[in-house]
Amino acid sequence: MSEIVLHNYFRSSTSYRVRIALAMKGLPYRYVAHHLRHGEQNSPAYLAVNPQGLVPALVWSDGTMIAQSMAIMEFLEEMVPEPRLLPADPHGRARVRMLSQMIACEIHPVNNLRVLGALRQRYHADDAEVASWFRHWVAATFGPLEALLSQSPDTGTFCHGETPGMADICLVAQVANNRRFDVDMTPYPAITRINEACMKLQPFIDAAPANQPDAE
Amino acid sequence: MSEIVLHNYFRSSTSYRVRIALAMKGLPYRYVAHHLRHGEQNSPAYLAVNPQGLVPALVWSDGTMIAQSMAIMEFLEEMVPEPRLLPADPHGRARVRMLSQMIACEIHPVNNLRVLGALRQRYHADDAEVASWFRHWVAATFGPLEALLSQSPDTGTFCHGETPGMADICLVAQVANNRRFDVDMTPYPAITRINEACMKLQPFIDAAPANQPDAE
Repeated sequence: MSEIVLHNYFRSSTSYRVRIALAMKGLPYRYVAHHLRHGEQNSPAYLAVNPQGLVPALVWSDGTMIAQSMAIMEFLEEMVPEPRLLPADPHGRARVRMLSQMIACEIHPVNNLRVLGALRQRYHADDAEVASWFRHWVAATFGPLEALLSQSPDTGTFCHGETPGMADICLVAQVANNRRFDVDMTPYPAITRINEACMKLQPFIDAAPANQPDAE
Repeated sequence: MSEIVLHNYFRSSTSYRVRIALAMKGLPYRYVAHHLRHGEQNSPAYLAVNPQGLVPALVWSDGTMIAQSMAIMEFLEEMVPEPRLLPADPHGRARVRMLSQMIACEIHPVNNLRVLGALRQRYHADDAEVASWFRHWVAATFGPLEALLSQSPDTGTFCHGETPGMADICLVAQVANNRRFDVDMTPYPAITRINEACMKLQPFIDAAPANQPDAE
């Protein structure tokens, strides 16, 4: 094998993260779409690739499969160091990973398609309740994230200084997801400003859900 | 400042992860307990340390605060490289991070105290329903995790080869958490075997919830 393959879905915000990272690193890849709402991620063929049945999954040029967007981004950073997704100093790296994980561990996992589906199935949550749940967990983390970003001298045009990186990637993908549930962004001026700065950059534009081949 | 401080709670499995990592690295630290069930993590004093009001939070010897257990472990790995929590090769590191993130992003976030509390509050979930929810998400990830561990030649006595690391830390903390909800471990012989191997090692024993000063 020689090409990089990304198993993904245009609307998946974790797939969006990896698409931005690949674009920033300048890595071409073959786009393989799995329609999550049609359950295509649970096909036997895909489960043979990634037993978790989740997107994204990256198949590197040597055939190695890596699932989990945060692990994929760390791998890309190690294989193609420039441009950096993480700062050079350990303290800066820790800060960027902390900001990233706040979104990756506290917002997305409780708000992804299968969890929202479980709320509908187990508790008969309707669209309004699902949206309320979604917004609750965004607010629980975006509040402290806004505080950490607005109060730190390490914050620049982007989450950490003057170059975009892993935390910006997570932030942009989450802000895009928020639009589907009408999250009020007024309380988050720093997050909004950083999102706008990122969305002027080509890798973020190219990786956006609306610009993917399976976009609806 | 010169000491390392860990803000944590004996029962928190993300705190448990960091305690194991600190013990493996041989780093002494001051233990500051926040009783999550009493809401102590939301005190103004603690929010001034970590605006997210979550444990764990590490305050490094130079005063730097780092929240999010996965970010803390990566920081410890960079500051004190030996013994390693991650393999030396990028492919091995990617595999260990993938296995770690499967637990950190797909199980713990949907099963932590504040999410289970939201189920009780919003949907009047009782103890049996909360336990059912917890077990559902453990099974959704432990199934594929068992497959990945049992089918890979990279798996050894531990998740990756013959030395314990980040994935083992996440695994052990999750298995300990499972006991509170009577998760049937029969379908997971590889996970069970690795957990048992870890629990023979002093850092894992010392970091266990029952051995903390705030244990009940």
